[in-house]
Amino acid sequence: MITEILSTGDEVRSGAIADSNAAYISQRIEGEAGLPVSRHSCVGDDIKDIAGILREIGTRADIALVTGGLGPTSDDMTAEAAALAAGVNLILNETALGQMEAFFKMRNYTLNSSNRKQAILPEGAEVLYNPVGTAPGFALKIGKCLFFFMPGVPSEMKKMLADRVLPKIAELQGKQRHFCVVKTLSTFGLPESTVGERLAGLTEAVPEIRLGLRALFPEIQIKLYIEGDNQSLIDSRIEKAVQWILKEIGDKVISLDGSSMEAVIGKLLKEKNATLSVAESCTGGLISHRLTDVAGSSDYFLFSGVTYSNEAKIKVLGVSPDTLRQHGAVHEETARSMALGVKRLTGSTYGLSTSGIAGPGGGTAEKPVGTVCIGLATPREVIARRFHFSFGIRDMNKTIFAVTAMELLRRELKSEN
Amino acid sequence: MITEILSTGDEVRSGAIADSNAAYISQRIEGEAGLPVSRHSCVGDDIKDIAGILREIGTRADIALVTGGLGPTSDDMTAEAAALAAGVNLILNETALGQMEAFFKMRNYTLNSSNRKQAILPEGAEVLYNPVGTAPGFALKIGKCLFFFMPGVPSEMKKMLADRVLPKIAELQGKQRHFCVVKTLSTFGLPESTVGERLAGLTEAVPEIRLGLRALFPEIQIKLYIEGDNQSLIDSRIEKAVQWILKEIGDKVISLDGSSMEAVIGKLLKEKNATLSVAESCTGGLISHRLTDVAGSSDYFLFSGVTYSNEAKIKVLGVSPDTLRQHGAVHEETARSMALGVKRLTGSTYGLSTSGIAGPGGGTAEKPVGTVCIGLATPREVIARRFHFSFGIRDMNKTIFAVTAMELLRRELKSEN
Repeated sequence: MITEILSTGDEVRSGAIADSNAAYISQRIEGEAGLPVSRHSCVGDDIKDIAGILREIGTRADIALVTGGLGPTSDDMTAEAAALAAGVNLILNETALGQMEAFFKMRNYTLNSSNRKQAILPEGAEVLYNPVGTAPGFALKIGKCLFFFMPGVPSEMKKMLADRVLPKIAELQGKQRHFCVVKTLSTFGLPESTVGERLAGLTEAVPEIRLGLRALFPEIQIKLYIEGDNQSLIDSRIEKAVQWILKEIGDKVISLDGSSMEAVIGKLLKEKNATLSVAESCTGGLISHRLTDVAGSSDYFLFSGVTYSNEAKIKVLGVSPDTLRQHGAVHEETARSMALGVKRLTGSTYGLSTSGIAGPGGGTAEKPVGTVCIGLATPREVIARRFHFSFGIRDMNKTIFAVTAMELLRRELKSEN
Repeated sequence: MITEILSTGDEVRSGAIADSNAAYISQRIEGEAGLPVSRHSCVGDDIKDIAGILREIGTRADIALVTGGLGPTSDDMTAEAAALAAGVNLILNETALGQMEAFFKMRNYTLNSSNRKQAILPEGAEVLYNPVGTAPGFALKIGKCLFFFMPGVPSEMKKMLADRVLPKIAELQGKQRHFCVVKTLSTFGLPESTVGERLAGLTEAVPEIRLGLRALFPEIQIKLYIEGDNQSLIDSRIEKAVQWILKEIGDKVISLDGSSMEAVIGKLLKEKNATLSVAESCTGGLISHRLTDVAGSSDYFLFSGVTYSNEAKIKVLGVSPDTLRQHGAVHEETARSMALGVKRLTGSTYGLSTSGIAGPGGGTAEKPVGTVCIGLATPREVIARRFHFSFGIRDMNKTIFAVTAMELLRRELKSEN
């Protein structure tokens, strides 16, 4: 089945944003439905341009995934363009309207006329339910191609793709469909190119497996794709590949199910019935933000003190002014004192701390931008480590500092088991 | 002049990377040459697919910018595809070879046969010099369209676009050249659909302006596009549009230059020589993380206490156990006490606090998921407000809670001026 992707919208066309939706859809369609995408296209918010390219795709492809232009404003004109291209009328779709009314009612909003416009869809369109936004999606045949129209907002598109579109495509594939399994491992500590090199021999060891890498900076996900129609054979090959990878780079693998670092830490803390407090300087709250993104984190996460100023380090965490005077804020001794201080302050099982220079300013010859000291207070000891990273970009530094600190804690939690 | 962009390569087609080259080229072509790009396309490393789409574009566009497939390996086949589409032979281009030899000599490299392949270009192609890599670019007419073929490596493409392609396009445009200006305003407090409705009259008030909206949840950016060849006329129309927007939804506009909420707050605090500390519960460090994403934030940001547990609220912030017992953690009184506590603890000018229920668990009938209480301690008073949002998704709730708290502070800082 020939598969294409179309992105609509002036923000992509004009280059205000890069087309990450198209990349995401390509990955999932290829990985999960086993359908390589043959072409991406993008046109702006212009009804003639959209209708024109829909007709073109309708002569070339069997399946097309379209994003954008389903919103309530006047520059949202995908439904109208689809009707034009298909040669059908626009009508008020009662299913779509009903779903929107329920969505609004649940949130105590009032449905206004511009929202009502979103329920006006091409005749014959099949509604694709949107549980996280107001814009309903729809499926419609134009020419020989079945189009799936989805919202451009990434969170809404992702949900609709997973819940509505991929199952529909699997249904269409019918008996043609093989099992197509994706197994995801998360790693931390090697750049993407090195992971690729270290795993180069995998396709020889398990030829049925296709390997994919996905960078979720600074974590690298390893994706194993396999097709077939014998579930137990698939399972054993996946298992063989996982074992091969663990032998090769096992110490860098943080989860065998794609879980993020913060989710892995949460699970380990829960298993131990332990609690955590954090003292952050250069990471500015990012460790805390990521830890609390995990639902249920209030079970083990007690407190984070984002102590940017020396005064806050002294007053809140009890770091001694002498330590700061003697070693400065970015030092193993200070990190050690912060970790211990936040553990004592809150009575948590573990205390984790960061102090470093995220940049762009603040670097010196001895402690250049990218330097971070990490402290970890455990029930038995207090350890501190110094690292240097040379990304030179503030938010990348914050991120790598935060994940490196969490990795130190993860290794400690694992080693105690 | 109709302008299109084509990206070639399996890494974009398969979604391994997002097409940031296309976004970059769009912006520069639209911004500097005043040529809105009408379409982007992407196909993989397949000679028939590339030749096919080159022919298509040759019937539609006047100018096309192509990236990728100029390297030395066997999956680099753009030159061959271009020759096929143009119906000309491939020949060794002496100019390209000379430039490559000079490039290699300067670096003491040896030119091997696979590099030599890069100098084999379609007959009639005009070489575009690449000063930063081995792959020469080239310009070639196919159909009615002049194609500029550039490397896919971003740094090489950017240099070639700036030094070779944009000047060439300016030459072609002759006196036709327009200015094309984009102005960005940031807003908070209205959903995208309402912003669209409230600004529906803008195109009537200033017909020369094209309006675009971009959702950066929960902020909505307003983009104003305008073309023309008289800079002062453009400026006055942009100014007229901005004034119109300010009259219509001025209280929702947070910046006139696209700055984010945290950047606006940082600027206001700096102007006042004031400092800020934050006590976060439900936002889990996100306010702090966003504030510290702004370079230079250590000038005004002193501390954030992420006090998830009641014990931390009591011990660190000095919230009275009675307040917590009487009202619970999510209450205006608690938020007030947290804001005041963190201000006192650190001696900051302002104290900001959040306490709420981000979900998925923890909601009650009286305080459902999505409830947040925000406290703000200023030099004169302590205020507290309660809000309810019904997104029902943990990270959306965290985000809207954080930005709502920052908005309360922004309004206070503005009103004091």
